[in-house]
This record gives sequence, C-alpha cells and structure tokens, in this order.
Amino acid sequence: MQVVATVGRNEALEKRIQSQFPTVQFTFLKKMKEIGENRYTAEILVTYGEDLDEKLINEMKNLRWIMVMSAGIEKLPLDAIKKNHIIVTNARGIHKIPMAEFVFGYILQYAKQLPLFKKQQSEKVWNRKVHLQEIYGKTMLVVGAGAIGSQISRYGKTFGMHTIGINRSGKENPDFDATYSLEQLNHILPEADYVISVLPNTVSTNKIFSRQQFFKMKKEAVFINIGRGNAVDEHALMEALDEGQLAHAFLDVFEKEPLPADHPFWKSDKVTITPHLSAISDMYLPRAYEIFVKNLWNYVNKENNWINLVDLNRGY
Amino acid sequence: MQVVATVGRNEALEKRIQSQFPTVQFTFLKKMKEIGENRYTAEILVTYGEDLDEKLINEMKNLRWIMVMSAGIEKLPLDAIKKNHIIVTNARGIHKIPMAEFVFGYILQYAKQLPLFKKQQSEKVWNRKVHLQEIYGKTMLVVGAGAIGSQISRYGKTFGMHTIGINRSGKENPDFDATYSLEQLNHILPEADYVISVLPNTVSTNKIFSRQQFFKMKKEAVFINIGRGNAVDEHALMEALDEGQLAHAFLDVFEKEPLPADHPFWKSDKVTITPHLSAISDMYLPRAYEIFVKNLWNYVNKENNWINLVDLNRGY
Repeated sequence: MQVVATVGRNEALEKRIQSQFPTVQFTFLKKMKEIGENRYTAEILVTYGEDLDEKLINEMKNLRWIMVMSAGIEKLPLDAIKKNHIIVTNARGIHKIPMAEFVFGYILQYAKQLPLFKKQQSEKVWNRKVHLQEIYGKTMLVVGAGAIGSQISRYGKTFGMHTIGINRSGKENPDFDATYSLEQLNHILPEADYVISVLPNTVSTNKIFSRQQFFKMKKEAVFINIGRGNAVDEHALMEALDEGQLAHAFLDVFEKEPLPADHPFWKSDKVTITPHLSAISDMYLPRAYEIFVKNLWNYVNKENNWINLVDLNRGY
Repeated sequence: MQVVATVGRNEALEKRIQSQFPTVQFTFLKKMKEIGENRYTAEILVTYGEDLDEKLINEMKNLRWIMVMSAGIEKLPLDAIKKNHIIVTNARGIHKIPMAEFVFGYILQYAKQLPLFKKQQSEKVWNRKVHLQEIYGKTMLVVGAGAIGSQISRYGKTFGMHTIGINRSGKENPDFDATYSLEQLNHILPEADYVISVLPNTVSTNKIFSRQQFFKMKKEAVFINIGRGNAVDEHALMEALDEGQLAHAFLDVFEKEPLPADHPFWKSDKVTITPHLSAISDMYLPRAYEIFVKNLWNYVNKENNWINLVDLNRGY
C-alpha cells in the first residue's frame, strides 16, 4: 500500500506518520511534478487538490483515495475522479480557528482604525480626534453557517455582538443568536453591521452577492469575504463601494487569483486585499495530517468510517 | 444644587439628565475656561480630571463632589481636594469593553501581519509567503488583573489562549487560568507570548517594566501597554527591542504625552504607537453619564452608596 504526498516536506510530521504505519510505503514529494513512476503504484494521494488533472487521474490506475489537505475541491478533475470511483476526503474543519481569528483581525482593524494610526505614526502625528467604534452590540451576519461560520459566531458572541447565521435550509444552529435560510438573505442584510461570506465555491453560490445585495446593506456596513471569490459580483461590489452603498470590503478571495494587476480593488481605499490566506497558520499542516491519520487507520482497517468524506455531486 | 460639567457638549445626554433631575441646576460647559462665576456656586463638578488646579479647587468653596469621567486621577490636585474634604468618584469599569477590544485589535493585527498586507496592496503585490500565527494556544500575561484585565482574559480564553493575571496580592481571579502577585512577575514573564500592562499610575507602578523585565521576555514576545506610561522605562524598552530581546511593542500610553517628536519610538518598526485612546468609543460618554446619574441619585437622596468612590490615598 503506497501513499504519495505532494503537500510540501515536513520531516517531523513525515517521521511520525511513517512510525505510526510501519507497513505502509510513504513517498513524500515536494511537488506533483516529481511523481514519475509512482503514478502507477500509488493507492492513496495526499494533495492540496490543485495539482491534479484528468490525464493524471486516468494514469493512476491504482488510486483509490484522495486526501485533499484543504477545504475547496473546485480544482479537482471531478468527472475523472467519479468515473474511476475514487474516494475523496478533505480537511474541512481545521480552518475554523485561523479563519475566525482572521475575521476578527479585519473587524477590529476596522472598528479601531488601526491603519490610520500607522499612517499617523509615519508622519509623527499625535491626533486623538479619531472616530473609534466598539464591536460590542454590533450585528454580524455570517452567510455560510457551517463549522467556520459557527466559530466566528462564538467569538462574536463573546465580544457582545448579535450574530445571525444563514445556511441553505435555515435550520437552527445553536452557535448563532438567529438562523435564516439563504432565501431570506435580502431581508436580513439591512440589519447587519458586518456581513461575512464563508460560502464554498459551488454552482449554487455563484454571485450570491450582487448589486441588489450590496444595495440592501447599511451604508456603514462592512463586507468580508473569506469563502470563495465566485460568491461575489466584483464589478457590482466596486460600484456599490464607490457609490457609498456600503463602507468597506475586506477580501481574501477573488473571482480570479492572483488578483489581476489592473483590477480596481488594488487602488481603492474602501477595499482591503489579502492574498487568500485567512486559513494559513503554523498549525495548518499538523492539523490536516491529524485528519489524514485518522482516515488512514480507517482505510487500513477497511472500516467505512471516514472523516470529512466529500460528496462529489454536492461539491463539498 | 448646581452641577457644572466640563466634558464637552452632548445635547441628547444633557436633556435626558436634566429631565431626570428637574430640581438640580445643570451648567454644561464646553471647557473649564468658561466656568466664570459658577466656580463659587458649583456643588458638583463633572470633568475628565485634567482641567483642575489647586487655585481653582480653593476658589470652589461650595464644591462637595468631583465626578471624574475617566479612570486616571493623576492630574487632579489631590492635596487641595483632600484638604477641602471633596469626594471623588470616577468612571472606572466603563473602559473595559473598548480597551479589551483594542488589545485584540493589536494582537490580531500582529499575529495576522495585517500592516504587511496593506503595504503589499499599495504595491499591487500578491504574495502568500507570509508567516501567520494563531493566537489559539498562546499565553497572555495581564499585569493589572482588575476589571479591564479580566475582560481581556475572558476574550483571550474564548480564543483558546492561556491567560495569566498579575495583581498586587496574587489573590485568585476566576477570570484567569492562573493568578500571581506582582512580586512573581519576573518568574512568569518568560512564559508569555503577549505581555499586557493595564497598570494605573501610582507611585508603586513606576517603571515596573524596566531592563530586567524586558530581558526576561521571550524573543518572540509582544509587549502591550494600555495602562499608564509611568509603568515603562521607555529607554530600556527601546534598547531591548533594538537588541531583539522581545519582538514588538504596542503602546497607547507614554511617560510624556503627546509623545515628543524626537522620541525614538516614532521611527521604530518594532513599535506601534496609538495616541492614548484605547478606551475611546462612541459609547464612552453615555456609559460615563450612567455612572454619574446613579451617583447623583445617591447624592440627592443623601445615601452613602457611591459607585466608584476613589480612595485618594491609594490613588484609584
């Protein structure tokens, strides 16, 4: 039984997993390019899910299981994977802590005007006439009330925020003060001070945030996207910001990444850009490997007890 | 009974308090300069505590009570106040929410490297090779484990941080994972990732953070001061930062404010300066007036049931 991993090298983690599974053959590669003949023997593939194509999948005749060490699977050649009856699991759930922390970095940076003080410092200006807000008492609307959204809400509640979650069905989620269905989005948007999209990239999330949604928001509202870029009509967002329909956007994800150099977001004072890394932290790979190890026990022992099994038709 | 207030004008708040106490004469001034003849008739003074001197106190023959709408009383002419048996109350406690939020603005800005992304955006750089930390699992040491420190600790615990509090006696504070006395500071310092001073300005807090303390900290540690500037030996701090004995300092308060233009802090990449406003928020004056109103009921009804009575000998 051969495992090929293409998620970068980490000697400590590799040693530990090899000692946990002495009978399994592990091949740790820096990049998929190095796979060579291993493509014909690998039974299990550990990948970030961005280095696969249909040709490779069809060549990997022994492949039974792909562990994607990330949450999004939109870059997988899904048709070939389905056709070859390959199981896919992912690392969803491990992102919730760094991503929820990142959101509060954004929110507090905004409420406390920290970039302004950075500018004042560079000019040696001691100016206390600055409008500072509290996040206590503010309302946050989390669109995509799953594991990450719930973590954001738990932090929000501790800060005394009112938290509203949106999921597809509107089924109650006890981590939120209130939960609504996606159909009710437009009715809830006017209540929110912070609107946070944690939506995955699926057909049904395309441009959920378009002109109409931005115009429903408070003029003081802040929009945050740490989900996937496809959920946002970027042209409509830029227009709404320019027209003052909402106050600011913090964007970690975009329709096209890297964000093209001529995109108007780069130059806007009302947009803060981070390069798709809200989930990144020094704890990332250790946590992802933990899930892989549990699933590898499951696989080795032929139990059907997967963690984070991906429904390839639903897309997550 | 005349109340003179010198805390800025706010028509809505003034109307409300006048309607709550129809028999009390309120004189709302923009600044103490405008006090004029009112100095001889005022029985109660509502002030931020920075606009009084000994001469004025001695002239205010009817003054019985000073409500300081802030926490620090170090700028009050204490000897004259004691000599004239004037009661002092303050607004301590109302600072805890904005200040604790501010601290997490600092901490998350640091862990998530938000200023770096701001710079990258200005240069249209999409660079994901950035070291991002989690605050989950990190240790925070709060020196001055009172109302504000406890609020910081509660937020920290929600984020999965280990929280240690230091107070004078070391008496247990259930809001912290552990509590120690000020004498044990040097022993605890090496454990902390974030060291946060919330100390008030008293004789016994002078330069508690000096060369020895900064050298006890982890090289990766971040020092935060939102208490008072007198607690820090600024020269020693600058030296320790330059030598890499700790990683960064976020400072809201200074030995001398405004921070002098030639101070080395202004130009250091390892220092973030904010101009003494961690407590500022749009909720500040309403919350301070709430305390004043409760104390005014107490005063009018001649009950001896003060909120936030200041012990003039202890200094807080």
